[in-house]
Amino acid sequence: MQFFQRQISLQARNRGFHLITEEILRAMPELKTLKTGMLQVFIQHTSASLTINENADPTVRLDFETWMNKAVPEGDPDYEHDYEGDDDMPAHIKSSLMGASVLIPITNGKLNLGTWQGIYLCEHRNRGGSRWVVISAWGN
Amino acid sequence: MQFFQRQISLQARNRGFHLITEEILRAMPELKTLKTGMLQVFIQHTSASLTINENADPTVRLDFETWMNKAVPEGDPDYEHDYEGDDDMPAHIKSSLMGASVLIPITNGKLNLGTWQGIYLCEHRNRGGSRWVVISAWGN
Amino acid sequence: MQFFQRQISLQARNRGFHLITEEILRAMPELKTLKTGMLQVFIQHTSASLTINENADPTVRLDFETWMNKAVPEGDPDYEHDYEGDDDMPAHIKSSLMGASVLIPITNGKLNLGTWQGIYLCEHRNRGGSRWVVISAWGN
Repeated sequence: MQFFQRQISLQARNRGFHLITEEILRAMPELKTLKTGMLQVFIQHTSASLTINENADPTVRLDFETWMNKAVPEGDPDYEHDYEGDDDMPAHIKSSLMGASVLIPITNGKLNLGTWQGIYLCEHRNRGGSRWVVISAWGN
Repeated sequence: MQFFQRQISLQARNRGFHLITEEILRAMPELKTLKTGMLQVFIQHTSASLTINENADPTVRLDFETWMNKAVPEGDPDYEHDYEGDDDMPAHIKSSLMGASVLIPITNGKLNLGTWQGIYLCEHRNRGGSRWVVISAWGN
Repeated sequence: MQFFQRQISLQARNRGFHLITEEILRAMPELKTLKTGMLQVFIQHTSASLTINENADPTVRLDFETWMNKAVPEGDPDYEHDYEGDDDMPAHIKSSLMGASVLIPITNGKLNLGTWQGIYLCEHRNRGGSRWVVISAWGN
């Protein structure tokens, strides 16, 4: 079995949900050599996250941000951790709700996503800056 | 190391949370040959999801549906994505809250789940139809 | 490729969020032998969970508990599953929101976490007792 791994920096994005499937694929061309395998993308931050969701209509990504901001409100006086502003603690909570990684099967050298699936970078900070991810792929 | 992978269709289920552990085990008999390994189940949809939870009392699955519908309400006028009805955008959000996959250790040819754990298919649409999953198993 | 796996019991903790990175590393010294690989920690319970989040300021862990208790309230009369008290059904829901496992890349014999990342045990019961986890590591 083969194992490939690479660390890359994703360009800074605005707060919100962003499709990054193509950027990940470009960074790991070796996955084309795997007949059956797995790809993991792991984000090395606690105020941004990764998830898999709808890859077509941009309003889905907008509505994710809308819902998130209602579910994890800013400025709750009960938060104790707020050094870095009102978006600080909510960003930590949102990142655990979505998760720090996605794990996707590889079949015949391609990510075996459903037709409507894509990888989202979820940027929970107002000014998160560029984000590091570790991409790992293994299989035969 | 060995790698097994198979794509199967799960029968259509009603909206709600459903135990599918046995269906997954039947679809991947090769996991019996692995002394130590991992099993991943990945759902190829963005309005249904997978999670691990209590395998005994059916009211747990009912209460999951009850909580979910309060946490991710339908008909919020702030959603922009509603082509397919009131259950459309909430289904996308719920699917990312639960996640598109589960990853479970294999020990001595069996899923090494706790006594009370099972795999749930979470159907977030009113009429989701049958659902595709990719099952991957690897190990020695 | 090598595959290591071990089951350990984590000491009982109070309800809340707890850093367990060092405890996990001590339990799997073999990960030092892997140049590239993956580590999975899987919890065998449905009322406690695992996530990755901020490893420095303890108030982050307190605020997680604060938010969780608002998002998944106890004593909702709509819950049907409440045999074991008011913390019973909320614990199941919280555990699926966080997830039963974390999967982290290994690079040059070390967990390739970001500077501020650690592994959290999320104890959702008032008296959860000790908790079993299965730790798996694979790679080259």
